[in-house]
Amino acid sequence: MAIATFGGTLGDVKNPQIVILGAGFAGINCARDLKNLQGEVVVIDKKNHHLFQPLLYQVATATLSPAEIAAPIRSVLRNQKNTHVLLADVKGIDRATKQITALVSGEEKQISYDYLVVATGARGSYFGHDEWEAFAPGLKSIPDATAIRQKVLLSFEAAETEEDPTRRSQLLHFILVGGGPTGVEMAGAISELAKISLSRDFRRIKPSDVTITLIEAGARILATFPESLSARAKKDLQRLGVTVRENTRVEKIEDGVVRLGSEALYANTILWTAGVMASPAAKWLNAEADRGGRVKVNPFLQLPGNPEIFVVGDTASVIDEKGNAVPGVAPAAMQQGHYAATAIRTLLAGKALTKPFRYVNKGNLATIGKSAAVADVAGFKLAGIVAWVTWLFVHIFYLIGFRNRIVVLVEWAWSYFFSQRGARLVTPAKG
Amino acid sequence: MAIATFGGTLGDVKNPQIVILGAGFAGINCARDLKNLQGEVVVIDKKNHHLFQPLLYQVATATLSPAEIAAPIRSVLRNQKNTHVLLADVKGIDRATKQITALVSGEEKQISYDYLVVATGARGSYFGHDEWEAFAPGLKSIPDATAIRQKVLLSFEAAETEEDPTRRSQLLHFILVGGGPTGVEMAGAISELAKISLSRDFRRIKPSDVTITLIEAGARILATFPESLSARAKKDLQRLGVTVRENTRVEKIEDGVVRLGSEALYANTILWTAGVMASPAAKWLNAEADRGGRVKVNPFLQLPGNPEIFVVGDTASVIDEKGNAVPGVAPAAMQQGHYAATAIRTLLAGKALTKPFRYVNKGNLATIGKSAAVADVAGFKLAGIVAWVTWLFVHIFYLIGFRNRIVVLVEWAWSYFFSQRGARLVTPAKG
Repeated sequence: MAIATFGGTLGDVKNPQIVILGAGFAGINCARDLKNLQGEVVVIDKKNHHLFQPLLYQVATATLSPAEIAAPIRSVLRNQKNTHVLLADVKGIDRATKQITALVSGEEKQISYDYLVVATGARGSYFGHDEWEAFAPGLKSIPDATAIRQKVLLSFEAAETEEDPTRRSQLLHFILVGGGPTGVEMAGAISELAKISLSRDFRRIKPSDVTITLIEAGARILATFPESLSARAKKDLQRLGVTVRENTRVEKIEDGVVRLGSEALYANTILWTAGVMASPAAKWLNAEADRGGRVKVNPFLQLPGNPEIFVVGDTASVIDEKGNAVPGVAPAAMQQGHYAATAIRTLLAGKALTKPFRYVNKGNLATIGKSAAVADVAGFKLAGIVAWVTWLFVHIFYLIGFRNRIVVLVEWAWSYFFSQRGARLVTPAKG
Repeated sequence: MAIATFGGTLGDVKNPQIVILGAGFAGINCARDLKNLQGEVVVIDKKNHHLFQPLLYQVATATLSPAEIAAPIRSVLRNQKNTHVLLADVKGIDRATKQITALVSGEEKQISYDYLVVATGARGSYFGHDEWEAFAPGLKSIPDATAIRQKVLLSFEAAETEEDPTRRSQLLHFILVGGGPTGVEMAGAISELAKISLSRDFRRIKPSDVTITLIEAGARILATFPESLSARAKKDLQRLGVTVRENTRVEKIEDGVVRLGSEALYANTILWTAGVMASPAAKWLNAEADRGGRVKVNPFLQLPGNPEIFVVGDTASVIDEKGNAVPGVAPAAMQQGHYAATAIRTLLAGKALTKPFRYVNKGNLATIGKSAAVADVAGFKLAGIVAWVTWLFVHIFYLIGFRNRIVVLVEWAWSYFFSQRGARLVTPAKG
């Protein structure tokens, strides 16, 4: 089946056509595994780049430049002759006619599929309080990261000339809502940026003027890690001057204020590092979703009733054989992408799927600051510099593109040895 | 004299106070030379970074990331204890009371000066046709560069799926108006980006589908270079597939159209690389300006009648002893910055200025593409790989900040050997 509305000019289009929505960890790994498949693969994404999301907080905190953690999707898949990349915004999916409606360069087009892999990821969730987003932005994309970087840097600029002490302390107060890995990594990175790199450059700001508060509703930060590592991470953060508040529920967020019952915390910069919500895939598919918006799939990652549709990564709600939910982390997304590719090859070969998806948990890692991290790998609980070096190698290893790896290593070495941040740019968008 | 409205909290403020407006090549070099001066130096810029403008076209053509050619002003001047950096937007200068009015974090403040150095640079000039700017943007800032990068990359994305051949050829037509160094360097870089790096990644775009037109109103491109080098640059550009049109006057620019008398050229991307216009300094100072908006100064770079005000770099109209206008290039700006610092030290020592500013022309350089450049250095006319290597070392040498140099060298090596561009990001600004 051809992409009907492409006018057949794609060349000799052979059966079947596999469409992958989203070039995140799940989508890009699925596409790579379909190299040399007899048939056409179409990868659709609304961005032109694959983003290495685990390092996005380093763009937000001015260590890395956006291009260092992003690779053009077309470059990544350049050598796969059967693969087409389409910059487009998905609007809907018709399961009956097997057609996707998408905006391509401003025009609505239809793209047909024989097999469909939905891997459109997740975005921040405000648990029904979408009005909080304006005051506490989240961190999912490069524009999010550069906007946060700008906000943090401009807070320092404003504090330098602010004479009112109350306003000044608000400018130098940074609140993170949500104590998962992103919140912990951001808190550590903001502390190092603020207390070491930046305060040296300002004449009137002392490191002790800066306050960082990490708020976690649950009993402990890093809830998915063993208890001993949560405690260690908390200690490491406190050493960096971060105030860690566990068992603390946010009742309301307004402009510059986080309300916790009778208490109110004032800060110019409030960041949301709590829940995520799946992309609107469930709506497009008109399919059943869990509370987080994730599409419920069968153990083979297929949409019930539509064996030709796979939903993977943060978009899918997967319950493994033991009844546990597969977590929304990068390794799980990669594994699901690989699984979907293998499953499609199996079905194309006329065989039935027999082995359900099984998540292999290779461990959990979170970095806190220079030489500090916690890792729970293969039953070993690591902390301190050993965990930090592990974290470093795992991230460099998975970073797509040889060029990016070298440049990121240079940036890290630089910021490690000199405590300077390379990407401290305030670049307002063109009006 | 103190910065009155800083509330005296700057610490022990000593006489005199020197204010530098603008941290471009002129301003930053002036500030550096005033290190250890007995007195306070205040550097005011509306951006937080010093920009290495000669490489801006490489950001626009996706070789470099913005942070690689920008260094935070505060970092550059960190070790100068007498120097304050202020992120502010200048609104006016009162010569009588020696006060600058500026917007600081949204609030209007007054800053007093004993000596003032105006180094606010230039912006694109449309020779009285400001309405062309919307259709043919210029390249002066990082947001300009990332907007152009986005436009170029999205033109390719749109062309990949465009079926109408006329519209498709317009999407793949890139017009540069103005054949000075920026126009020549952009034309070469767009050609390499389009014909080598990008066309490999698209399935339906062949290098021969891409058209690049460089329009120059004068008799030859690179008019400030010797004639033989203009001819050589033209040949090099033609080898890269660029259509060079000299003696061609643009009559009108509309959305997607450049009108040349009876002829009309259609292109999705039209870029303005012609004239520049000085910043509004003449208006702030209520001073006499030349046609380019540059403030007329005496041979000591002082504003006539105000020996305490120096105007330098692209903001100044300087006529040297031989009656020649000093060109608006980076080396001239640097020399003027150094000169102003020395002059201020001389005046502070109670002596008179005796040696007028003299521009030392160290040569002209323009790169055209991989291993191709033209150079007119110390009487030697160089072309080809020798000129290109010269260009490379001169630019790396002057690039501020050791970190930036390493990262830029890695990026250049990568793009040289693999013809890949590292920074091909389309990142729409946050809505």
